[in-house]
Amino acid sequence: MPELVNRQWLLAKRPVGRPQNGDFEYREVHIPTPGEGEVLLRIINALIDPAQRGWMDAVGNYFDPSPLGEPMRSGIIAKVVKSNSDLHPVGQYVSGLGGWEDYTVVPEGSVDIIPYDGSQELGAFSHLLGTKGATAYFGLLEICGLKEGDQVLVSSAAGAVGSLVGQFARIKGCRVVGIARGPEKCRWITEELGFDAAIDYGATGDLSAAIAEQFPDGLDVYFDNVGGEMLEAAIDNLALHARIAICGMISEYNQSDAPGPRNMWNLLVKRARIEGFLVSDFRPRYQEARAAIDSWIKEGRLKYKLDEREGFDILPKTLNCLFDGDHDGRLLVKLVKEVDTVI
Amino acid sequence: MPELVNRQWLLAKRPVGRPQNGDFEYREVHIPTPGEGEVLLRIINALIDPAQRGWMDAVGNYFDPSPLGEPMRSGIIAKVVKSNSDLHPVGQYVSGLGGWEDYTVVPEGSVDIIPYDGSQELGAFSHLLGTKGATAYFGLLEICGLKEGDQVLVSSAAGAVGSLVGQFARIKGCRVVGIARGPEKCRWITEELGFDAAIDYGATGDLSAAIAEQFPDGLDVYFDNVGGEMLEAAIDNLALHARIAICGMISEYNQSDAPGPRNMWNLLVKRARIEGFLVSDFRPRYQEARAAIDSWIKEGRLKYKLDEREGFDILPKTLNCLFDGDHDGRLLVKLVKEVDTVI
Repeated sequence: MPELVNRQWLLAKRPVGRPQNGDFEYREVHIPTPGEGEVLLRIINALIDPAQRGWMDAVGNYFDPSPLGEPMRSGIIAKVVKSNSDLHPVGQYVSGLGGWEDYTVVPEGSVDIIPYDGSQELGAFSHLLGTKGATAYFGLLEICGLKEGDQVLVSSAAGAVGSLVGQFARIKGCRVVGIARGPEKCRWITEELGFDAAIDYGATGDLSAAIAEQFPDGLDVYFDNVGGEMLEAAIDNLALHARIAICGMISEYNQSDAPGPRNMWNLLVKRARIEGFLVSDFRPRYQEARAAIDSWIKEGRLKYKLDEREGFDILPKTLNCLFDGDHDGRLLVKLVKEVDTVI
Repeated sequence: MPELVNRQWLLAKRPVGRPQNGDFEYREVHIPTPGEGEVLLRIINALIDPAQRGWMDAVGNYFDPSPLGEPMRSGIIAKVVKSNSDLHPVGQYVSGLGGWEDYTVVPEGSVDIIPYDGSQELGAFSHLLGTKGATAYFGLLEICGLKEGDQVLVSSAAGAVGSLVGQFARIKGCRVVGIARGPEKCRWITEELGFDAAIDYGATGDLSAAIAEQFPDGLDVYFDNVGGEMLEAAIDNLALHARIAICGMISEYNQSDAPGPRNMWNLLVKRARIEGFLVSDFRPRYQEARAAIDSWIKEGRLKYKLDEREGFDILPKTLNCLFDGDHDGRLLVKLVKEVDTVI
């Protein structure tokens, strides 16, 4: 007999500050049936992502809020197990937005088909070959307008996006310094990923001075995953015509009224630019990023680290690992070991 | 007999906060003699400009500091009265950087030749046809990437640059709202210059709410001449893909540690951009701006206001009029009524 139950973690309350266990509610329901032009997906991986904290708020940021009483919205990697669509045959792998549940029904074309053939690590499609790779790629090349020889600073450098930003910039002939917390992450990005240097955020008293030491002539590009005081310290150290991409501001997700950079004046002095972006704006061009990244993988020029954990029950607590820094690479939760497509 | 004396206002001290009378020192010296490849200029107009406050500080901003014990650095309009250069025949009018003095010697090519034929108002070359015009032109079209139909906000809208920004944006088919202080300036920009609306900064308690009222769907372009809380209020009200040009921040010239915008997060949400610029970076393209502006003048589509005052002795006190808002249009001081080129 196939499974008859669809497990779900519902968003039950909107948290103030850090999410709590009571913000989610466990439920078991029947597996839904796809209608015309729809497919039933078995969710294999749930991606744990900072954006999810924003979706828990009542006021939508760049997405509508994740609705109360429904499975918590999540990036997913899934397999088609029933199909009423020629686009998506049974057995196809897809990625996209879903929720914290075992099964979900989606309309055809609403998820991305991923070229998984069993030889790759499936989780890589959530990372290098997924939106994280595209975020690093378009943020660096389009928003920052990266040029060979640029002096590049990346925050959250051991994170999912930051670790790719640094490697892409190295491939493009730039010098890269990463900010990360703790000697282990700093060692990883320099010795394993090939960053030119690391600044240990936990051990550095004066961040602005530490950046100045690494960039005596100023930095050309800052890829900002953090915001707050880190952004201010970077603005202190701009070279002429510097470009800053604001990719995410995890430090501000749980704060409502964080102080802003006191040195905006320096943008004028240095004729510099700050630009916020969302990778979803580049969705029509994802294939371009995937092709470039795929070629770098095949040349053995990219390293990445997945922090894959197992079990449906651990989803809520795993989300908080993001805010504690208690994870090591792209964080995802595997919901099922093997997928039987005959249900 | 020609004049034998070159009057000078030297920068004697570096002010803290507002400049004081004692920061300048009056001196009379001999008129200098041009060497090979140099010309002697009779300075006709000294332009009074916010950038001068920055030049008085010990730490250079985008220019080196104005040296102590030398004439206070100033934009000038001048006439060539002695020449050892084929580029600059006697009688030619030029503009550029000089100092607060009657005469100065400059190397050929270090000043811009201006096409003054006696029919125009000479001061206009410090404004529409000079760097102020180029600042408004390139800031709006290049830095903000202005598009027809954009919703545009301008601060210091009755100022030298702001009044042109608004008029250029109207010519380009945009809706323009200006922020200015006091009913008289607000009346001038709407009734005379054709701005669609004005926000009276002096009469508005909640600036962010006042902007929201004018831009219910958000603003596409903010041309920032002020910085500080005005920048924050604009960031509150961005439309998707909004562009902000930071042209000057007069409110911060006399403050060292002004608070920064607390809402930088909104740049990410709205995929918006802030970019600082200096018009001098566009110097190779000034002719392009001058040609466009000249055609708009000839079509009767531009209005401007010069606040020209007379007398060498009033230079120091006139500089402070900038910070008191006590001026009405582009501020310049005329040092001499007529220029005799035979000295």
